[in-house]
Amino acid sequence: MQGEATEGQSKVGIVTIGTELVRGERLDTNSAWLSDQLTELGLTCVLHRSCPDDLGAIVRALRQSVEEVGAGGVLLVTGGLGPTNDDLTRDAVAELLGSPLELHQPSLEHIQALYARFKRDMPDSNRRQALVPAGARVLATEVGTAPGFAAELDGVQIYVLPGPPREVRWFWDRHLSEPLTARGHSPGPAWAFRTVGIGESALAERLHALEASGVLVRYAAEDRLGTVAVTIHLPPTDPAAQAVRADLGRHLCAEGRGVTLADAVGALLIERDLRLATAESCTGGRVAAFLTGVPGISAVFDRGLVSYSNQSKQDLLGVPAELLEAQGAVCSEVAQAMARGARDRAGAAIGLGITGIAGPGGGTEDKPVGLVHFAVAGPGERLVALERLLPGDREQIQIRAAATALDLIRLAVQSAD
Amino acid sequence: MQGEATEGQSKVGIVTIGTELVRGERLDTNSAWLSDQLTELGLTCVLHRSCPDDLGAIVRALRQSVEEVGAGGVLLVTGGLGPTNDDLTRDAVAELLGSPLELHQPSLEHIQALYARFKRDMPDSNRRQALVPAGARVLATEVGTAPGFAAELDGVQIYVLPGPPREVRWFWDRHLSEPLTARGHSPGPAWAFRTVGIGESALAERLHALEASGVLVRYAAEDRLGTVAVTIHLPPTDPAAQAVRADLGRHLCAEGRGVTLADAVGALLIERDLRLATAESCTGGRVAAFLTGVPGISAVFDRGLVSYSNQSKQDLLGVPAELLEAQGAVCSEVAQAMARGARDRAGAAIGLGITGIAGPGGGTEDKPVGLVHFAVAGPGERLVALERLLPGDREQIQIRAAATALDLIRLAVQSAD
Repeated sequence: MQGEATEGQSKVGIVTIGTELVRGERLDTNSAWLSDQLTELGLTCVLHRSCPDDLGAIVRALRQSVEEVGAGGVLLVTGGLGPTNDDLTRDAVAELLGSPLELHQPSLEHIQALYARFKRDMPDSNRRQALVPAGARVLATEVGTAPGFAAELDGVQIYVLPGPPREVRWFWDRHLSEPLTARGHSPGPAWAFRTVGIGESALAERLHALEASGVLVRYAAEDRLGTVAVTIHLPPTDPAAQAVRADLGRHLCAEGRGVTLADAVGALLIERDLRLATAESCTGGRVAAFLTGVPGISAVFDRGLVSYSNQSKQDLLGVPAELLEAQGAVCSEVAQAMARGARDRAGAAIGLGITGIAGPGGGTEDKPVGLVHFAVAGPGERLVALERLLPGDREQIQIRAAATALDLIRLAVQSAD
Repeated sequence: MQGEATEGQSKVGIVTIGTELVRGERLDTNSAWLSDQLTELGLTCVLHRSCPDDLGAIVRALRQSVEEVGAGGVLLVTGGLGPTNDDLTRDAVAELLGSPLELHQPSLEHIQALYARFKRDMPDSNRRQALVPAGARVLATEVGTAPGFAAELDGVQIYVLPGPPREVRWFWDRHLSEPLTARGHSPGPAWAFRTVGIGESALAERLHALEASGVLVRYAAEDRLGTVAVTIHLPPTDPAAQAVRADLGRHLCAEGRGVTLADAVGALLIERDLRLATAESCTGGRVAAFLTGVPGISAVFDRGLVSYSNQSKQDLLGVPAELLEAQGAVCSEVAQAMARGARDRAGAAIGLGITGIAGPGGGTEDKPVGLVHFAVAGPGERLVALERLLPGDREQIQIRAAATALDLIRLAVQSAD
């Protein structure tokens, strides 16, 4: 992977401002989010930089970043536009441009109107938020108090935005997306999908040939979801894309930009009108939590059971005590009995059962930490069972098991066609 | 908050290297993690910078960062020490120091031994990982293939580490913590706790006086947990700390570095030997998932019910159909019936009930999106009910409701004393 921009293409730098960032109190998510949008437009980000709320430090950061992206480039700046004396970004840009700060009357009126609407007095400090460097172009806001602004220095277009991620996204859509699209060399139609059950490096190996052939390929591990998000700049119908699809096989679990595995499973169940009931042991409710994150899921998901103890597996799901005694709770037969019990007791079309050892304790030579049994009962008489040895710590095992379970539901439904 | 180092104190900068970072494919978590450690030692980080795998860009980033921290300062560099031609950090540091790269025989032998252990041939490219700039001090590794190294330039101590976060943490403990502790002005004993149900800015206001008095205060919103982590550099028994405790009251929900709200609730239940059963509607299993993230929780948590539909509230919890019909699912009476049903049917000491509207649809004028009713039945005859209007999108409402529910369990148990 090369980070240098190709000849004639705009280089972009991102500067995020806030003492809380360099003190490690807040993770800078704006830089990665903005970079992802830029890459999508075919623009090349060559720099992320965070600096504290200190006038000298901000001026140096901006000056060096303008130099680094060079004439024809773009600098995106977020943060430091709040109302307090700590918020120095507008002062730093004014100093850099050699322009005084001026009051922007419409922005002041916007802030006053916001306070009036919530029946509060506007503190005097909020007037600061209506100041912009003379000559800068104001980017009006509808999502907060502070406006953004745009200015040019040494041939570099500088966009200055408020720091809250929600506001950054709004400014991107409203004010940045269009002019930056015009600067980018769009890498063409994108095919976005997610994979499950395959590590990022194994994925990189499988996509290497495609990448080496010049196709833009991006992937990002999503530790919270147990999946990897992949974007390939090819139409999904291109033969090379089809080859990737064939190679990835069942690992490809959701398609479409921003579509999670839970979204895909939810849409599939809703489309087929198949009601699901879940029975979770080692995942402790994570499958239910993933599914209920999907708006509208109530059409097909009406209950989930977290049967953590043996007693609860008997009470809630009718898993036979003799089976639990003879084979222990972590085996395929118990997962299957859980899946059937969940389905039958809820009168659902599909039941899911998960039982495993998330650790850190509880592992044995025969049944090590990370061993998880899955079963899906239904639709109809079908029953699918799966055994996996998952790597990672307790949280990673729980998340990966939940993703594997969602994927198994997807496969069970699709194979029923 | 000021980001400048106080007189005579080492300034620190962090440079993370990798095209995947500036392309937005991978979130840079090393910088925030390292900064948090530095702040803990009383050191001041003044710069985060990420740059692509490009020799010129890395050299410029390092040179400017050395300048920014200045003589007596420290530069931490992560990433770009892999075996491929993309990995150029060691070349960039060598260029910066004006020293050639030299093969470090013990590091080569370490890498060869690793490959031998896994019975694989070492690719020739891995020899690159044993190269270090002449004169640099090698930091041996036990967690990967590439060693780190340390060197000095213009009075700045530079530490270069491999990029994987797991390796960064190991190198910190083994090689960096001690020398950097010696450079820091430790801010003294730390009192770490978490808060729930109070926004970060409201928290900042309450802690402002303490911070203004010169006490080091840090706080970080934990969006995934619905809590804010706070560290105050005072002994918990200090009168000023006691005043904070009194001021925060019930918002202070967990104490100890790294102790989450779920950890605190789990420990409390285990200590009192109180068994809990949960019944969740709008949180969809998130309370159960939080609790089962705590190792050893099976001693007190044996089941959780996700009763998403009205029918499941009747079937699983015995909530009366007439109540659901007369008042709807989102009201205090239903939350109370859920809590009692969960407790009684599980034979537990405590039952939790949650019902609300997570959105985006389903809200009305009377019952808007974000309205959540909570109830805890037990221990004994006690019953606590709570109503909250929570801000945010669907995910934020679900997470905040789960955190509020955990906190209510804590308060119910503590008030039973």
